[in-house]
Amino acid sequence: MSWKDVQRAQSENSVLAVVIGSTEQHGPHLPLCTDVYIPLGIAERVASRINLIIAPPITYGYYSQVRSGGGGENFPGTTSLRSATLVGFLTDIFNALTRHGFKRFLILSGHYENSQLIGEGLQQAIESHATEVRALLVNYWELIPSRIINEVYGEDFPGWEIEHAGLAETSMMMALRPELVRAELIRDDTSARRLEYDIIPPPSNTIPKNGVPWKASLATKGKGELMLREIVDRLVEAVNKDLNTGPS
Amino acid sequence: MSWKDVQRAQSENSVLAVVIGSTEQHGPHLPLCTDVYIPLGIAERVASRINLIIAPPITYGYYSQVRSGGGGENFPGTTSLRSATLVGFLTDIFNALTRHGFKRFLILSGHYENSQLIGEGLQQAIESHATEVRALLVNYWELIPSRIINEVYGEDFPGWEIEHAGLAETSMMMALRPELVRAELIRDDTSARRLEYDIIPPPSNTIPKNGVPWKASLATKGKGELMLREIVDRLVEAVNKDLNTGPS
Amino acid sequence: MSWKDVQRAQSENSVLAVVIGSTEQHGPHLPLCTDVYIPLGIAERVASRINLIIAPPITYGYYSQVRSGGGGENFPGTTSLRSATLVGFLTDIFNALTRHGFKRFLILSGHYENSQLIGEGLQQAIESHATEVRALLVNYWELIPSRIINEVYGEDFPGWEIEHAGLAETSMMMALRPELVRAELIRDDTSARRLEYDIIPPPSNTIPKNGVPWKASLATKGKGELMLREIVDRLVEAVNKDLNTGPS
Amino acid sequence: MSWKDVQRAQSENSVLAVVIGSTEQHGPHLPLCTDVYIPLGIAERVASRINLIIAPPITYGYYSQVRSGGGGENFPGTTSLRSATLVGFLTDIFNALTRHGFKRFLILSGHYENSQLIGEGLQQAIESHATEVRALLVNYWELIPSRIINEVYGEDFPGWEIEHAGLAETSMMMALRPELVRAELIRDDTSARRLEYDIIPPPSNTIPKNGVPWKASLATKGKGELMLREIVDRLVEAVNKDLNTGPS
Amino acid sequence: MSWKDVQRAQSENSVLAVVIGSTEQHGPHLPLCTDVYIPLGIAERVASRINLIIAPPITYGYYSQVRSGGGGENFPGTTSLRSATLVGFLTDIFNALTRHGFKRFLILSGHYENSQLIGEGLQQAIESHATEVRALLVNYWELIPSRIINEVYGEDFPGWEIEHAGLAETSMMMALRPELVRAELIRDDTSARRLEYDIIPPPSNTIPKNGVPWKASLATKGKGELMLREIVDRLVEAVNKDLNTGPS
Amino acid sequence: MSWKDVQRAQSENSVLAVVIGSTEQHGPHLPLCTDVYIPLGIAERVASRINLIIAPPITYGYYSQVRSGGGGENFPGTTSLRSATLVGFLTDIFNALTRHGFKRFLILSGHYENSQLIGEGLQQAIESHATEVRALLVNYWELIPSRIINEVYGEDFPGWEIEHAGLAETSMMMALRPELVRAELIRDDTSARRLEYDIIPPPSNTIPKNGVPWKASLATKGKGELMLREIVDRLVEAVNKDLNTGPS
Repeated sequence: MSWKDVQRAQSENSVLAVVIGSTEQHGPHLPLCTDVYIPLGIAERVASRINLIIAPPITYGYYSQVRSGGGGENFPGTTSLRSATLVGFLTDIFNALTRHGFKRFLILSGHYENSQLIGEGLQQAIESHATEVRALLVNYWELIPSRIINEVYGEDFPGWEIEHAGLAETSMMMALRPELVRAELIRDDTSARRLEYDIIPPPSNTIPKNGVPWKASLATKGKGELMLREIVDRLVEAVNKDLNTGPS
Repeated sequence: MSWKDVQRAQSENSVLAVVIGSTEQHGPHLPLCTDVYIPLGIAERVASRINLIIAPPITYGYYSQVRSGGGGENFPGTTSLRSATLVGFLTDIFNALTRHGFKRFLILSGHYENSQLIGEGLQQAIESHATEVRALLVNYWELIPSRIINEVYGEDFPGWEIEHAGLAETSMMMALRPELVRAELIRDDTSARRLEYDIIPPPSNTIPKNGVPWKASLATKGKGELMLREIVDRLVEAVNKDLNTGPS
Repeated sequence: MSWKDVQRAQSENSVLAVVIGSTEQHGPHLPLCTDVYIPLGIAERVASRINLIIAPPITYGYYSQVRSGGGGENFPGTTSLRSATLVGFLTDIFNALTRHGFKRFLILSGHYENSQLIGEGLQQAIESHATEVRALLVNYWELIPSRIINEVYGEDFPGWEIEHAGLAETSMMMALRPELVRAELIRDDTSARRLEYDIIPPPSNTIPKNGVPWKASLATKGKGELMLREIVDRLVEAVNKDLNTGPS
Repeated sequence: MSWKDVQRAQSENSVLAVVIGSTEQHGPHLPLCTDVYIPLGIAERVASRINLIIAPPITYGYYSQVRSGGGGENFPGTTSLRSATLVGFLTDIFNALTRHGFKRFLILSGHYENSQLIGEGLQQAIESHATEVRALLVNYWELIPSRIINEVYGEDFPGWEIEHAGLAETSMMMALRPELVRAELIRDDTSARRLEYDIIPPPSNTIPKNGVPWKASLATKGKGELMLREIVDRLVEAVNKDLNTGPS
Repeated sequence: MSWKDVQRAQSENSVLAVVIGSTEQHGPHLPLCTDVYIPLGIAERVASRINLIIAPPITYGYYSQVRSGGGGENFPGTTSLRSATLVGFLTDIFNALTRHGFKRFLILSGHYENSQLIGEGLQQAIESHATEVRALLVNYWELIPSRIINEVYGEDFPGWEIEHAGLAETSMMMALRPELVRAELIRDDTSARRLEYDIIPPPSNTIPKNGVPWKASLATKGKGELMLREIVDRLVEAVNKDLNTGPS
Repeated sequence: MSWKDVQRAQSENSVLAVVIGSTEQHGPHLPLCTDVYIPLGIAERVASRINLIIAPPITYGYYSQVRSGGGGENFPGTTSLRSATLVGFLTDIFNALTRHGFKRFLILSGHYENSQLIGEGLQQAIESHATEVRALLVNYWELIPSRIINEVYGEDFPGWEIEHAGLAETSMMMALRPELVRAELIRDDTSARRLEYDIIPPPSNTIPKNGVPWKASLATKGKGELMLREIVDRLVEAVNKDLNTGPS
């Protein structure tokens, strides 16, 4: 996109999608930027259905947490930001985007740990500009309904907490970016001990050796498509419902 | 406690409990500092069983989130900190405490939104001092096992996400600080619409009018005691297991 | 207090008292949070006379200074904040409180070192909200008139600078929280050398061994009551005089 | 790349390329992320000749400046970071990368305004880790020798300052990412007034209407290849010469 | 001084004087930088007696306070720094100076409000470098003994708090920089109301109209010389006593 | 100047000159604050021709860079600020100055590295006050026209990048502050290797031993006068042209 394209989108009151991921280990078979590729792929599919443009994705995110599956900052390649950095970064970005005149945002995060901080960054930009902004802040996997979870996992859904580089992410990557999935390296793993609290520093038996806390081997492109279709449908619906009215 | 008491505790290698809560609406029937009172009460019960001292509690926490039940920053009285402030605060506190010689911490949070940021503050203090610290970081409600949840809720457990000022917190306050519970003001409420994503600014139908997204009316002191007993047992066990060995 | 109580107080234009202390050594006989207990006790007495509510007290303060009697950061238990942290913290708190609609503040500090920074935090909140706020910022001991000082100390007043955990604080704690004063541990002490400038790092002969630079042994509950009565009277008068008119 | 790939690269002491660009208007014919695409393309060519891996590129940079051709923050789409944000971001990234064990960095910037701040971010990471790091920090266009400039521009080189979205960048984009160049939209433009100092706010006659302060119409793929070849050769040489020895 | 001079001073283990003042109104008769000129003049006199070099003075300081006589931020010309800025500035300066090898500092402040923050900035630099530094931090007026105060003021000493642009500062400026004192503009003034607490915003009757809260008309060059002689003597003594031994 | 003088200047809508330099090695023959003395001298000459007042100069600047001639942070005496510190400092200063009512600024920098950050500090102050400010931000040497460069250097102009403590700065110091130039210590030097990119840490052969990368021996007072005359003429013209109209 050139600046003229942005100008046109802004004048048409297009929804602006902001994709925020991470650079974090995703097992031996998925790339470090999996948390960027999936929401970016989703945004592109949404953009094929409604008037939406996509800002350059944000490829670094907040510290990985042991208990949400990423293994913390303990794997080579996991490259994360402090909260102050991430919030400052998002404040600057949203300041610029709202100054350009954008008023409607679809923020798609692929990394659980970012969730709260995105809202803070956006809020700070809104407050200092007093603009009338309306935004959806979506962890894409939270849009997958139980019906689809049951269809995909059978009885076996382990909770999103340890679904990291597992069935869901691997399947969606197979559907969106098959050339980046090295299926031959998939090995199911798990940690010997699962925690209800954090231990600092984390004992080694609480982190799976290969970085995959659950079964990636059950992933298929079909399951990925199934989940993506639901997510995209829900997003189109959410934009139509919640971004088309003024603030209530 | 005087400084001599702290010196003694430090020389005995006592575990230091750090309680972190919030000042956040908890319905018409619970005090703003419910997220402090409960983990503080728990810490006191733990201290009656093992060698543990308790630092002055931290009574302000991170921004309340609509989807985790507190209703965001939209109620009078909810008084919250930016992430940079909270992390800076915790870094300073842990810097001082580790400089005093404490090496074993039991950090009890009563406010879900604090979770990730506590780890960051502690990590920054550890890094700048290069001290050998071992800490447990506990959201106390995550220690309640399914068995007890079933016993207390029957079929009706709505998920911790919307258990805010509801059955669990009200019951535990009845057990710990009955004089602060105004049972006569309990009214069950809920929001007309429950979200799978955040909307900024939040539509008013996504926030319960009285601030209670679930049934506080089912609370009893007995249920509170039941939950507290489990939590305290698990904490004693966790301290013995995970704070008594050196870093692995 | 619940959020409904806050809402009511705000709608009645109540004065909001904000108590700011420290966690700092106060000799072997007083608790670390003496700088919280005394202004909190004072605020409670003021609240019994005028329409005033009290926010959850702030229990951590700015770095202790050798020359103002606390002995610096050299005693176990003294747990302090950097200026950036304290100002950020107060900015957040006052931002929330002014957003809730409070316009009149009585800020009571129990820790000399906080003084300037409280004003800065409040100013930043006011500026970013452009609200019409009026506040009194009080170091409570500065309200004790010479007449009472003479009555209490005779010829012997050493200056507030080294009145730390001494006659004044001990007496007021005896009046307000007698159960927290361990009178049997009172030993008068002083430093071998008193400074007109700061030396970094401080030589050990400039810090009293037990943390008390002046005579705590002269403390009595009666002296405490005498001082407290004056302070409370002056505060009631100050609120009536200086918070009831608009900004001049 | 997966984390295993990073681990392998680190154990082989590979050079790590870090690409830093901007999201900044580049006329009607080039994409907003031109400052990312060019150094990324260069890094890929270098990687085909020596042992080098490439970190996920940083797509946002420091404020655009009127006098260095980007037109400041005055075009839709230009989305920039404050210095504190950029330095904090780079500090975090380099902290993680040096903690992973990388010791040799080739940092390629496509955006003049980033230059000084990259060094500061790297320095802060080095200092807090005391690691033995060696880095090259390159503005890629500064590697083009006068000989090539003469060959490409004839007598007409206007200085790098106003070579923004002009002959050089357009030609290199034609060579590297032809599908992103919309040649049909190229129009030469300039500003009516050229400055020897900054005026804040900038008068409109100091900014070219379409964002291109010099002749993009002279761009060809061949000129791009010529320049790229020189740059890549010089980088291979620089890495061999200046990153293969220990710090002097 | 050139860098060679600094190198020589450092190799001789010279004491380094750092002068910190403010840009703050000092009545109609004294310059805005009075708080710089006096300690700088003092440092020069000390330098004529012992081996001491003087860093470029710091001409901006912390917010002026109403109760310490400067009148707050309410006069044209008063130009002040936030605490975070001042501490950051001093941290950077002391980081550089200790990295150059200086180990002994005489820090002279001419502005009361700077006092605590100077210590914080120095401490942060020391901590991040772990260097063995010894510093004196002096508010120069605190070195004037009662004997001299009595001689100069007679019975009339109002306390340092309101000695702003009054007898002491005016006299010392007459002795040090007579060309900058406009004696013909001296008018004694005072505020109608003197406070024992801060009021925000300050009522106008708490600030003297011309910025001088006490009698400047009693100033003479002779009184200035008397005070300066004492201060310089005490500083020479302090350096010899407290900077010539290692940390105790 | 007293506060009354500032008030008068403000009411006359005077231009306010802000001089920003550095404390940085300038060879064996020039003082560390050369980057302050030259623009300050220029400002004084401008002030003799138009209605302009001069704020207390800012004597510390951003990190010295190897490639722009100062040799980086590698010489004793070079004492620099992080970007966050400098921007924060300037924001505070400009906040105060615009709050005093100044609307027209001539900002003169003597240190190349400050350039971008000055604009950022000014911008932040403007944004938070929404004031109508107009400023010129000038690197004084950029006002010297080619004609004069040719006259002074003949064929030998090496580019401003390595003109550090060389012909230009030495000549202007001879004209402005001859008493601070130690001509007898001038020795021409250069670095064995000149770089087109930065190497971190810098190899010693890229930094001239005495800190002077070019020929200071060619300096004369006459050349200094010639350059200064041009600069002052251009500044008077710039102020008349670009600060006397409202923002366009």
